Amino acid sequence: MSSTAASESDCTARLAGFVAHGRDRSRPRAVAAAATRAFANWVGCALGARSDPAVQAVGAMARSVGGRGASSLVGGDRERIDPVNAALVNGTAANALDYDDMHVPTLIHPTGPVVAAALAVAEQEGASGETLLCAIVAGIEVECRIGQAMFPAHYDAGWHITATAGTLGAAAAACSAMALGETQVRHAFGIAATTAGGLRSMLSNSCKSLNIGKAAAAGVSAALLARAGLDSDPGVLESRFGFLDVFAKGADAGCITAGLGDRYLVPEISLKPYPCGVVIHPVIDACIALAVPGDLPPTRVRAVRLQVSPRAAELADRPNPDTALAGRYSLQHAAALALAFGRAGLEAFAVDVADPAVRAWRDRVVLAVDPALGAGEARAGLLLEDGTCVEHAVTEPSGSPGKPLSDAQLEAKFAELAARTIEPAAAHALFDASLHVDRLEDVRVLREYWTAPAVPTPPAKGDRRS
Amino acid sequence: MSSTAASESDCTARLAGFVAHGRDRSRPRAVAAAATRAFANWVGCALGARSDPAVQAVGAMARSVGGRGASSLVGGDRERIDPVNAALVNGTAANALDYDDMHVPTLIHPTGPVVAAALAVAEQEGASGETLLCAIVAGIEVECRIGQAMFPAHYDAGWHITATAGTLGAAAAACSAMALGETQVRHAFGIAATTAGGLRSMLSNSCKSLNIGKAAAAGVSAALLARAGLDSDPGVLESRFGFLDVFAKGADAGCITAGLGDRYLVPEISLKPYPCGVVIHPVIDACIALAVPGDLPPTRVRAVRLQVSPRAAELADRPNPDTALAGRYSLQHAAALALAFGRAGLEAFAVDVADPAVRAWRDRVVLAVDPALGAGEARAGLLLEDGTCVEHAVTEPSGSPGKPLSDAQLEAKFAELAARTIEPAAAHALFDASLHVDRLEDVRVLREYWTAPAVPTPPAKGDRRS
Repeated sequence: MSSTAASESDCTARLAGFVAHGRDRSRPRAVAAAATRAFANWVGCALGARSDPAVQAVGAMARSVGGRGASSLVGGDRERIDPVNAALVNGTAANALDYDDMHVPTLIHPTGPVVAAALAVAEQEGASGETLLCAIVAGIEVECRIGQAMFPAHYDAGWHITATAGTLGAAAAACSAMALGETQVRHAFGIAATTAGGLRSMLSNSCKSLNIGKAAAAGVSAALLARAGLDSDPGVLESRFGFLDVFAKGADAGCITAGLGDRYLVPEISLKPYPCGVVIHPVIDACIALAVPGDLPPTRVRAVRLQVSPRAAELADRPNPDTALAGRYSLQHAAALALAFGRAGLEAFAVDVADPAVRAWRDRVVLAVDPALGAGEARAGLLLEDGTCVEHAVTEPSGSPGKPLSDAQLEAKFAELAARTIEPAAAHALFDASLHVDRLEDVRVLREYWTAPAVPTPPAKGDRRS
Repeated sequence: MSSTAASESDCTARLAGFVAHGRDRSRPRAVAAAATRAFANWVGCALGARSDPAVQAVGAMARSVGGRGASSLVGGDRERIDPVNAALVNGTAANALDYDDMHVPTLIHPTGPVVAAALAVAEQEGASGETLLCAIVAGIEVECRIGQAMFPAHYDAGWHITATAGTLGAAAAACSAMALGETQVRHAFGIAATTAGGLRSMLSNSCKSLNIGKAAAAGVSAALLARAGLDSDPGVLESRFGFLDVFAKGADAGCITAGLGDRYLVPEISLKPYPCGVVIHPVIDACIALAVPGDLPPTRVRAVRLQVSPRAAELADRPNPDTALAGRYSLQHAAALALAFGRAGLEAFAVDVADPAVRAWRDRVVLAVDPALGAGEARAGLLLEDGTCVEHAVTEPSGSPGKPLSDAQLEAKFAELAARTIEPAAAHALFDASLHVDRLEDVRVLREYWTAPAVPTPPAKGDRRS
């Protein structure tokens, strides 16, 4: 049997071994740095989405059915809840503003399910920051490696890949934080696989973020069930009627374990500089480069020509968005914001999608697909009424591994999000603690920073627990 | 637009209307009778599985993360729990012994997810028995109609159809019991669809039953989230990248709503007379007809020839089962039990699969597939050492709609299961109350009968709530 065939037939066992023995392995410095930055970014996103309607609805449900526990809701009050429901709410929150992160080669939001699961379990167990970081690295590797094996066919078939691969990543993270042994991790993978799901028809409604929270919750449940002694399919990745066979027939299972433990995908994560679909980011970069806010009114522009990748057009060719969420998935709208304001942060995306000044720009956009462009590439051009043409091309968008946010930019983004919920001094301290999370003796100190001083919306009677 | 096309494009809305207006509709007497019998059968199965290892593990996890509520665990002690976790445990229990029910045209176990969801919500709401029955009928119709549209391609692709279609059925039942309006039901269907899943590689391990419990829990969650205001894809059945597009491309959506409210699938349910895979039942009937326990030792038999449907062979051609669960999915083992003991109830299936007397029969079985046979048909023949041949053919297995269990047989089955947990007098009263559940003013009276007098396995410290 060739080594490739061997790696495919024992794929689940090898991934489980990677998770179970993660703490004994040395970890490249760049991996730890990328993981802590991604963690800090996740905390900011979850904190900023506290009053999002989807997060409010999921939070109300989780409080009504959740049990007692030691896990907290990021940005919530001092309440504690069981880790399954905490993961559900925090995972939903992290994705709600579309400001989180992205592994562009697989279109996975890596931290969404994984950090939500790892954190909820680490709090429940009173684990150290090093244990949490180790769980996050294990979870992201499992999630993105499985994603690589399935992308793009799995995504093109309609699966929300962060939800599906993310459930196994979340299970890996939860198992790591619980220090489960290899056999229990294999069963947890089986349980996670058979409770995984998530449809792409949700990308235009509130269940987009629920998919992420549910993946986190299912991952935590899987680890808890395995620890409680439930058996499952111990080879679920490679089994007939198992995960890959059913979710992604013909997937290249070999790439799941190739270089496992030597080569890490964590440093490939992009942290979003703009709160919108990642395929839109190169267009925003290009439009900001062209923008002269105030000095160039749209009436002087005959057309805004955007050239984008086929994937960007598939996901975000939306000339007339009618909701804020649709606006966050509209190339035309994002280009208009960038040209009108010279920026495209939370404040710009908070402008009403029907705003006439924005529409004046949006209506001038002409979109063209260039099959030669990758998902991280775009060109934008302005054709002025006087016949002048200006153009800007982007090959590496801001926030990508090749053009990462500086620590100062990351902290500015964090502060912008945190300001919605906590005081600036607490935000600064929380960012610092998050960026050095591996130094914490007990991750439960983090909750002291993210506990909001006041609850904006009083929960319905009977929905709260002490 | 033709009426067929119309029914396909508004499939979700029509199903939601069916659920939301179920209480205003008159219901054929045969539907109510079939539903109450299926309910009583479900209660017996859940009660009998109380000490099953999978149920114990799922129960321990659910108790550790579950919140306060008014829902009970069938066969549990006096504890109350939130409806999501109650549905999870009760749904798992109902399927654990493989003694539940089956809609043979779709291979769905209809009551598993649906009753677990309906009951948990009805208890939480303090609903009447009529409300519960109405929810069960709505759930089973939704589940089996969706299953019909997807079967067999969806099942053949590796999906555990009771888990997938069952999640939508459970959501329908939960919505009905909560009296949600049509719009909320549509959103609940969307939420259920994006949290549905379940792999066939689990059919040989404990997650087989977890799949059922998880479908029930996801259905209850979906209804609670819709009630809490979460929006979703309101046309999830017919959407691009929606439920049918992703889970069963090319499915005949028209048959989901054809005759909805006029023609019911509930009376098509088979209630199992034997605790094993339903495709095995005609073989057991045939072997019991041939058996002369005590008077015909296996040494006088040269061969036991079984002729079965292709589906039966696919699911249960298992000449050497090595666990009790594998034995319940073995045509050879079931035939051996029937021939050795002249019956194949819980007691027979409790015999060790390695028992020499059973093996003596099992080793003599020769299996042949006859493509002309349906899943409910089989022939068994004995070739004796003296050259004699005897054969028996079954075209309608016991427990099927054409050859239903009598009420006395159903009660005997119920008593056999209930005896594992409660006293005979309580079992008799519970069977009677279940069979006339529509007469109850408040379904919470049922828990008085199924609360076990003593807990066999004391829960781990910290795992219990008041």
